[in-house]
Amino acid sequence: MVITSSKNDYVRMLASLANKKGRLQNGLYLVEGVKMVKEALLYDQPIKSIAFTDTKLDELIEIQNDAIDKGIDVFVLKEHVMAAASDVKTSQGVVAAISLPSFDMPDGLFPDIILAMEGIQDPGNVGTMIRTAEAAGVDATILSSGCCDVVSPKVIRSCMGSMFRMPVYKSQDFFSTLNDLKENGYEIALGDVMGENVFDKRESIKKMVLVIGSEGRGVSKETMDIATKKYRVPMVGNNESLNASVAGGILLYQLLRDRLMDK
Amino acid sequence: MVITSSKNDYVRMLASLANKKGRLQNGLYLVEGVKMVKEALLYDQPIKSIAFTDTKLDELIEIQNDAIDKGIDVFVLKEHVMAAASDVKTSQGVVAAISLPSFDMPDGLFPDIILAMEGIQDPGNVGTMIRTAEAAGVDATILSSGCCDVVSPKVIRSCMGSMFRMPVYKSQDFFSTLNDLKENGYEIALGDVMGENVFDKRESIKKMVLVIGSEGRGVSKETMDIATKKYRVPMVGNNESLNASVAGGILLYQLLRDRLMDK
Repeated sequence: MVITSSKNDYVRMLASLANKKGRLQNGLYLVEGVKMVKEALLYDQPIKSIAFTDTKLDELIEIQNDAIDKGIDVFVLKEHVMAAASDVKTSQGVVAAISLPSFDMPDGLFPDIILAMEGIQDPGNVGTMIRTAEAAGVDATILSSGCCDVVSPKVIRSCMGSMFRMPVYKSQDFFSTLNDLKENGYEIALGDVMGENVFDKRESIKKMVLVIGSEGRGVSKETMDIATKKYRVPMVGNNESLNASVAGGILLYQLLRDRLMDK
Repeated sequence: MVITSSKNDYVRMLASLANKKGRLQNGLYLVEGVKMVKEALLYDQPIKSIAFTDTKLDELIEIQNDAIDKGIDVFVLKEHVMAAASDVKTSQGVVAAISLPSFDMPDGLFPDIILAMEGIQDPGNVGTMIRTAEAAGVDATILSSGCCDVVSPKVIRSCMGSMFRMPVYKSQDFFSTLNDLKENGYEIALGDVMGENVFDKRESIKKMVLVIGSEGRGVSKETMDIATKKYRVPMVGNNESLNASVAGGILLYQLLRDRLMDK
């Protein structure tokens, strides 16, 4: 049966997932597009349902068969109905509703290399940094409560599936999290324009949290006080700053350089 | 005299600068916001006129006095009229119309370190890479004719004034430009997933063009054939790729590492 009305309850529910309130009410978030839905299936995300447009594109049919094999509920929508459910300008004809992860901090041991984001509101920066972190070999990401919602559509789009593969935690008390990690032998490193040139760094890092602050304000004073290492990306031009995602990427790759050689 | 109508010819002209056609017809492009207009003044860009809203904010008055001192035409617009002229959601109350540069390739010598972009359509990526290039010490940027318009509002916003300080050239014949540079002793380096891990690179580079292709397609086959060095950003996660601006930034900084140490 094809859903032909945008007023259908399921369609309204999907549309509501564009907002945090709708996500919390339904315990779901939305993943859009062929590539991303495929990744969600591949990495066994808890997909509740997938909606397709009633086109007969091979790549959509392939996803549909995969979903049915996995026992996932499948819905078919008229194209204009999909447009109502979708958060993007031109839908690729497939969206998946996935159960919200808890994002709870783990009780036990943390992995060695952690990216922590403090108060980053821009969803593009958050998503891009999670994507870069996975590529650089970061083991987990921690977000302060001041960061934007990590399951908002724009974060999902810009992280390109990295969130399905790397643990992401939300810390309700960011400073005590950092302090705990420091007491457990982690270097607390941060990007700071007054820090050491990261290209002059010689020491090899075993256990590290790299804290990245927002493009405008940087990290908080409390985090600054906790930090054990401060690094800057050198700038030889007359720029005041770099794009936050670019600076974060350069810092991460440079700090993890020893692990990235010969790869 | 305060302009009170959005139908005013000057206001219509400003609004037309959001599109390439309007920019070419008027020989002007638009720069918006306090920070960017200040930078344009500071770096002596050929500003034709500046429009302000009729608010009495100190920072706007400061810019206005500076503009008048420099003999630049100044216009005052009602707030709703500025909204019609502006390309952004919430105008900061100041826009400058600047004469279009020629972007012609120089006749004589090129500088040593060049970033070349081939067919990059995303204005955010183009602007962010120009911004990163300046910071990393790149001497000039060359754009292939397949790149997006470098004076579009989104490029201007994301390059954060770097375009006012670093030469940007448009090449009508990208391959012959690359060939000329190669014959003049430049390494033609490019980002390529099959290339050498850029973190394993040992040699120091004296004269180099780094070519970055589009996020989807990469560089063309012709450019691939001209290249003398191919580098990749290593990825130890399960990512397929990195964000283009982030990958470009990591490559640039890593290739220019020798020049960036002790800075």
